Amino acid sequence: MKRVLVTGASGFLGRALVPALAGRGFEVHGVARSARPAIADVTWHAADLLTEAGRVQALSALRPTHLVHLAWEARPGRYREDPVNRLWAQASIELLARARACGTSRILGIGSCLEYGPQTGLCDERTSQCRPTTLYGQAKLSAAEAYIAAGAAWGRVFFPFGPHEPEARLIPSLIRHLRAGQSFDCSHGGQLRDFVYVEDLAQMIVAVLDSDLTGAVNLGSGEPRSLRSVIEHVADRLEARHLIRFGAIAATGVDAEPIIAADVRRLRSVTVDVPVIGFEQGAARDLAWWIDRMSGKA
Amino acid sequence: MKRVLVTGASGFLGRALVPALAGRGFEVHGVARSARPAIADVTWHAADLLTEAGRVQALSALRPTHLVHLAWEARPGRYREDPVNRLWAQASIELLARARACGTSRILGIGSCLEYGPQTGLCDERTSQCRPTTLYGQAKLSAAEAYIAAGAAWGRVFFPFGPHEPEARLIPSLIRHLRAGQSFDCSHGGQLRDFVYVEDLAQMIVAVLDSDLTGAVNLGSGEPRSLRSVIEHVADRLEARHLIRFGAIAATGVDAEPIIAADVRRLRSVTVDVPVIGFEQGAARDLAWWIDRMSGKA
Repeated sequence: MKRVLVTGASGFLGRALVPALAGRGFEVHGVARSARPAIADVTWHAADLLTEAGRVQALSALRPTHLVHLAWEARPGRYREDPVNRLWAQASIELLARARACGTSRILGIGSCLEYGPQTGLCDERTSQCRPTTLYGQAKLSAAEAYIAAGAAWGRVFFPFGPHEPEARLIPSLIRHLRAGQSFDCSHGGQLRDFVYVEDLAQMIVAVLDSDLTGAVNLGSGEPRSLRSVIEHVADRLEARHLIRFGAIAATGVDAEPIIAADVRRLRSVTVDVPVIGFEQGAARDLAWWIDRMSGKA
Repeated sequence: MKRVLVTGASGFLGRALVPALAGRGFEVHGVARSARPAIADVTWHAADLLTEAGRVQALSALRPTHLVHLAWEARPGRYREDPVNRLWAQASIELLARARACGTSRILGIGSCLEYGPQTGLCDERTSQCRPTTLYGQAKLSAAEAYIAAGAAWGRVFFPFGPHEPEARLIPSLIRHLRAGQSFDCSHGGQLRDFVYVEDLAQMIVAVLDSDLTGAVNLGSGEPRSLRSVIEHVADRLEARHLIRFGAIAATGVDAEPIIAADVRRLRSVTVDVPVIGFEQGAARDLAWWIDRMSGKA
């Protein structure tokens, strides 16, 4: 029996991951601080992973064979420099030790492309030097180093989008503005990013978890897109390209990096099948989901 | 009066460039060794640019204000190591000197992304070190160095596609196979390339020519795509994805490079409007053109 504990299971990525794990035959247990969304195929456990008691509670009784550690705090607009990142790095490292002590044999921590810091090209797990410029990236990297040293796997997520994405992030915010007939200010848009539809990302996480791959692995589509092309793609489907104002604001910090994109050769070594849905179809599904949700709210 | 001489005007890129130049108010003159395709808005001149007599003939009587030097020999399958590359490098440098002597004030030579050689990321005109691994790339680079030293502009073309593309190249060959119901063997397809629709490329060339930019400038879309996504895009429009055999052959040499893609910030400094047509619409037009042409032949 494969029994997996998913931390952060009630979040944006977690909600897509749970059904993907269940579909692969895992018995899925989710940890959440309080919210327990009504999703199928998961047994919920309440615990605050920032406390030692919470970590013991989450792991000791359950003794999962597998752990996917997604939980982290990532409030749009402030997560990159939020001091709480330090707490999550420490808690993540202690969760790893606790899981090892409970006999969990297969551990996958979830990190971020921001661990790499500025690169001139694709982020390569083996050759790119990690020089994160954000506290978030630095904290994720310090957790990554502990996971990798302990023989666990560590997935670096690029730019996920899809249902349940926090509303202040690019795509939901773009959709909300355009649906309301409001102009949308953005930077020049030439920056390349690797966007990955959240259900494809979930399949990637499952594939890595269910393999024996250890160390860092990029979780991205392998298809960089300019922000301009992403924004125009969404705007065109809403017939609202005239509302986009490229160059209205200056890109700064991480947002000004010309390219943040994944070399996916290592990921492809454990799965050749993803992304299955891809950007265009993912964007269509995402738009339909947001429109439905926004209409329901109106 | 802006009078431009276009070498290689009867070729794949030249045929798209002529109307774009005419549309910008240039008086367009084309040089070709023999073929003079029936295209509007151009006065043809016969000359063999590999000879001194031919270069004199092309330039001395006409005394153009502008020169776009496209002519080169690029036979699919063999151009990368063809010894004729050396002759074209030498002839290109001599053409530059001849144009200067004739008072041509604005000169744009056309080179290739293969001048860069292996890069881990985007090709940047200012910071990427050029280490071409092919004779073609080396020969283009030696011409580039002469043009740049003389204060001319030098455009580096990425992966153009569109009507009149030589039939042995990727997209025409793919279309031909799939239309005939034949399987199409390719490598893993994860390699990223910057494809640019030939009419968009023509607009980029016109924008650079009509600016005062000098030195090297990348001519690409700024949107890298995996070969897999390009091939699948075309195959899906022909409802023939089942005929594609990814991984059937091994990529070697330049074809195995993980990324050959343009940093387009320098290009954007002279034009923010391109690509206007873009990949999807370009692919649709290209497919329609090839299907029409192949039907006509059948």
